[in-house]
Amino acid sequence: MAEQEDVIELAKRRGFFFGANGAYGGVAGFYTYGPNGAAVKDNLESAWRDRFTVRQGNMEIEAPTIMPEAVFEASGHLDGFDDMLVECPECGESHRADHLIEDNTHIEEAESLPISEVEELIREHDLRCPTCDAALSGEPVEDFNLMFETSIGPGSGQPGYMRPETAQGIFVEFPRLKEYARNRLPFGVTQIGPAYRNEISPRKGIIRVREFTQAELETFIDPEEDEPPLHEVEDVEVTLYPADEQEDEDGEAYTTTVGDAVDEGVIGSDWVGYYLGVAQEWYERVGVDMDRFRFRQHLPGELAHYAADCWDAESEVGAARSAARSSSGDDEEPRDEGDWIEITGFAYRSDYDLSKHAEHSGESFTVFKQYDEPKTVERATVDPDMATLGPEFGGDAGAVAEALQTLAERDPDAFDEAEVEVEVDGETHTVDSDVANFSVEEVTENGEHITPHVVEPSFGVDRIVYTVIEHAYRTDEVDGEERTYLALDPEMAATDAAVFPLVSNDDRLLDLADEVTDDLRAAGLSVEYDDSGSIGRRYRRQDEVGTPFCVTVDRDGIEGDGPDTVTVRERDSARQVRVPVSEVADEIAALLDPEDDRAFDALAASHDEIETDVETA
Amino acid sequence: MAEQEDVIELAKRRGFFFGANGAYGGVAGFYTYGPNGAAVKDNLESAWRDRFTVRQGNMEIEAPTIMPEAVFEASGHLDGFDDMLVECPECGESHRADHLIEDNTHIEEAESLPISEVEELIREHDLRCPTCDAALSGEPVEDFNLMFETSIGPGSGQPGYMRPETAQGIFVEFPRLKEYARNRLPFGVTQIGPAYRNEISPRKGIIRVREFTQAELETFIDPEEDEPPLHEVEDVEVTLYPADEQEDEDGEAYTTTVGDAVDEGVIGSDWVGYYLGVAQEWYERVGVDMDRFRFRQHLPGELAHYAADCWDAESEVGAARSAARSSSGDDEEPRDEGDWIEITGFAYRSDYDLSKHAEHSGESFTVFKQYDEPKTVERATVDPDMATLGPEFGGDAGAVAEALQTLAERDPDAFDEAEVEVEVDGETHTVDSDVANFSVEEVTENGEHITPHVVEPSFGVDRIVYTVIEHAYRTDEVDGEERTYLALDPEMAATDAAVFPLVSNDDRLLDLADEVTDDLRAAGLSVEYDDSGSIGRRYRRQDEVGTPFCVTVDRDGIEGDGPDTVTVRERDSARQVRVPVSEVADEIAALLDPEDDRAFDALAASHDEIETDVETA
Repeated sequence: MAEQEDVIELAKRRGFFFGANGAYGGVAGFYTYGPNGAAVKDNLESAWRDRFTVRQGNMEIEAPTIMPEAVFEASGHLDGFDDMLVECPECGESHRADHLIEDNTHIEEAESLPISEVEELIREHDLRCPTCDAALSGEPVEDFNLMFETSIGPGSGQPGYMRPETAQGIFVEFPRLKEYARNRLPFGVTQIGPAYRNEISPRKGIIRVREFTQAELETFIDPEEDEPPLHEVEDVEVTLYPADEQEDEDGEAYTTTVGDAVDEGVIGSDWVGYYLGVAQEWYERVGVDMDRFRFRQHLPGELAHYAADCWDAESEVGAARSAARSSSGDDEEPRDEGDWIEITGFAYRSDYDLSKHAEHSGESFTVFKQYDEPKTVERATVDPDMATLGPEFGGDAGAVAEALQTLAERDPDAFDEAEVEVEVDGETHTVDSDVANFSVEEVTENGEHITPHVVEPSFGVDRIVYTVIEHAYRTDEVDGEERTYLALDPEMAATDAAVFPLVSNDDRLLDLADEVTDDLRAAGLSVEYDDSGSIGRRYRRQDEVGTPFCVTVDRDGIEGDGPDTVTVRERDSARQVRVPVSEVADEIAALLDPEDDRAFDALAASHDEIETDVETA
Repeated sequence: MAEQEDVIELAKRRGFFFGANGAYGGVAGFYTYGPNGAAVKDNLESAWRDRFTVRQGNMEIEAPTIMPEAVFEASGHLDGFDDMLVECPECGESHRADHLIEDNTHIEEAESLPISEVEELIREHDLRCPTCDAALSGEPVEDFNLMFETSIGPGSGQPGYMRPETAQGIFVEFPRLKEYARNRLPFGVTQIGPAYRNEISPRKGIIRVREFTQAELETFIDPEEDEPPLHEVEDVEVTLYPADEQEDEDGEAYTTTVGDAVDEGVIGSDWVGYYLGVAQEWYERVGVDMDRFRFRQHLPGELAHYAADCWDAESEVGAARSAARSSSGDDEEPRDEGDWIEITGFAYRSDYDLSKHAEHSGESFTVFKQYDEPKTVERATVDPDMATLGPEFGGDAGAVAEALQTLAERDPDAFDEAEVEVEVDGETHTVDSDVANFSVEEVTENGEHITPHVVEPSFGVDRIVYTVIEHAYRTDEVDGEERTYLALDPEMAATDAAVFPLVSNDDRLLDLADEVTDDLRAAGLSVEYDDSGSIGRRYRRQDEVGTPFCVTVDRDGIEGDGPDTVTVRERDSARQVRVPVSEVADEIAALLDPEDDRAFDALAASHDEIETDVETA
């Protein structure tokens, strides 16, 4: 059974990721991707772009990471994007108050509790500083805004913030983006890029960091008209953990289809259901272990007030299953449960975002929705007698007239009475209904301005990269020696194949190694050439990087009368087969091609296999 | 002749780029890439990665954008990364003092002048506020640090900065990166990502912005051993504008080969020369117009003190040449000179960066260089008689002993005298040479620890994207109508081909359009399907986006007895040819394939051409 520390140690050793600025002691919450990690992350982002931008026909944009304060006043981040902070009176260390409660009591989701209750719980449970054990009872709990603040321009400048989500860079440009979409709903806009949260106490290594990458899709829909192509994914099986199962003591996650879950109302929005189905297939494609994966519905207390329905995709980490368990298919073996971490959020956000930006910016964030045929509608209107209003209300007369029109639209029946009341600047005025000249007109309308609703799948790229690496982590024994390998999907692996010349003092052998390398590269594969250290060491290196195939060029292959051969070794099985040089590039390309179902078995059946003894752990 | 405003207007209209946060009035210096711009930028980054990471065998990493203060104390950015600021006493607007001088006098490179001289020049020329015309004489000029500052963690936190260059994220991780390179020089590390400069007054649209993307390559070399493969690029022709030509009144840029320029010492470093050659071919590949391109050497005053030689790649913008001039090959036509903007810097940075980080962090930033054979070397050493030093120097005795060892290594001859002098804590002590027990030992060394030198090509991605778009901007007249198009290289274009069904009420025609779209996508092309508006309007849209080929599906093509045909239109010539549906995907794929030299002429020769009247502007 692999421990999370083993994965993190391998990640550091093999250039996947490591804490940044180590020479200066490091800064919690900031990680650097080494060459292999950057390659896996790039592969993951490409796979995301392929599925959620290109194949969905969406537009991808790239917006700045620093945004002005006005954006976050509108979005609500300036006021509400807070965590609860409690500072130790002894050592001065800051802690998340809700985490202290969750870690030391049976209370879950302490984040949604009011501050006063959190302070009360700290007192009640006599919670102490995890660093120095000083009592925290009586210490004030405060809201701490998680945005990184900076200043734009010289002097005192204007306040700016590192965006806490890529989404705002899309919402705020809606007025222009809708033009690129030729003003037709539905349309989707994606963005992949950095986002920032100034976490109070980053922990869990790369899982809770201060700078991370998001891949977000904002789908703008007409809620009355637009339906997702649900039929495309209705048969996709998903593991769901709905709110009621979470609230029930004996409740648990269960497997069903997207279609059934939407029909039965377990998933409240067909758009959210559609994206769960699309995403489910995508997680499988990139190598998330579906035995350690679920969709968890937000509990009522977790839901943002504007969100009608929200589900998180969660993966289980910290309880990596061994190769033995996976290959025997025996799921009965007891194991420790790991941590469930959110890797994607799926939210039906209604018109909240666009309405807020419209309200705060004064610009139009609507789309003109043309009717199939012009509609004749009744419209209540007034035509106030200004010769009466003027003398009566003086400078307020105009405002009173406007208020009458507003009233007519909102409550036309009010004008059935002899007098109506309107409010101007907090003062109530009474006006004779006759003076208003109320009437109902018939008007022809070609369409209406509507504020689109937003459906958002928001992917945490780093957490998915971590999950994919941890879920690929395996150990076994080959020819009596323990080894560790990453069973990464070829689409995710940093390198497709590695070429090893066995010795470095044989020109014919080195030429052959170059020839094989060139052939593989010409077939479009990424190839690492490694001539350093023993062959065993080179295999170990590539196994730990997750390279699917290794090609060794040795003297056996170039002696004798037959054609020159090399050995091709498959990562997961560690089996080795002798393959003629002329065939090797085509064979490996076919094995890597997801559309070609050729298996290593077939290659082994038609070529000489070298015996290897593999013992799964 | 295209004006820069036309390019910027087209960029906004067609979704290349536009000022961000427009709904809130915008913030100077921040741009958003719309879908077409993001695609061009992504293509450019892929082409860079292909050439400078993959083909060079370098490692790519991804480091955080927020870094702690200690990094920038070491790098020198905290102290020296300043611009000169003068604030208007009337309107309060901030200006770059050096720009005011350059704009209003004949002085160039005012940036390198000391502040007192800049203040004097403002007085002397009676320079005024460009915003309100108030006098600036007598106003203080101040250094303004260009890094965006933020605070990491809760409370007062620790200071952090948005990185002003991606390079520091590489330098600071050198101790780990060298392990991934198996401790062997030379090796290169690349990074593509955001960088930030809090410009005092951003101007020139997307040319001088506050958030931008860099693509940097740091090559770590042993300056005594490592040679670049100069032969690969020695015959590449480059336009050079060396320092002496810039300083000579009649001097000008001239064309030579990389090999000659290195041989003649015009380019001072063969590594810099090598990268100029590699980059030259890359700029051509991505579509920079080589008539509006040069390599300009830094003047002695511009050079950083640690840089031995530094060249900028510069492109000329703001003077787009017309299609007429480009197609007639007539370069005699007079034209206005545009602005030369730096798009890449090539610097030999010596061991400056690694030495500084070693000094400030106390960590090792060296590589152990193994000798081919162990060397026997003489090493001067002392073995001071502490029984004498102790009573004489008390608590300082240890420090005096250390100072004696340092002196022995630095100046062994000093011990020939009867007495030597050493300094401890600013105090000079005299010691009898005998007490030092000086000797020279023979020791065997297997190698030495060396601090690698750095050669850095640093690309400004956004400026290259802008250059590629502006240099591709063309106007002409097709069938009597003016049109604008972007003659983008297919590798850069956002879309490979567009498919237009002529009418929307003919099922057979729509099915055929779907078939063609699927065929093109199956051939690996990115395809836009556009059924909105007149055909003329759709052509205009795709021309302005720079889509190389448009395929129109009309009734003519499906009537009659022969096979179904569609028209294929080439962007630059606007010529149209009828091609059978069964051939269209292969033909367009061949036309787009850079390794296939098939031309549209050949297609036209073997198929029916529809007459088009094209008049270049």
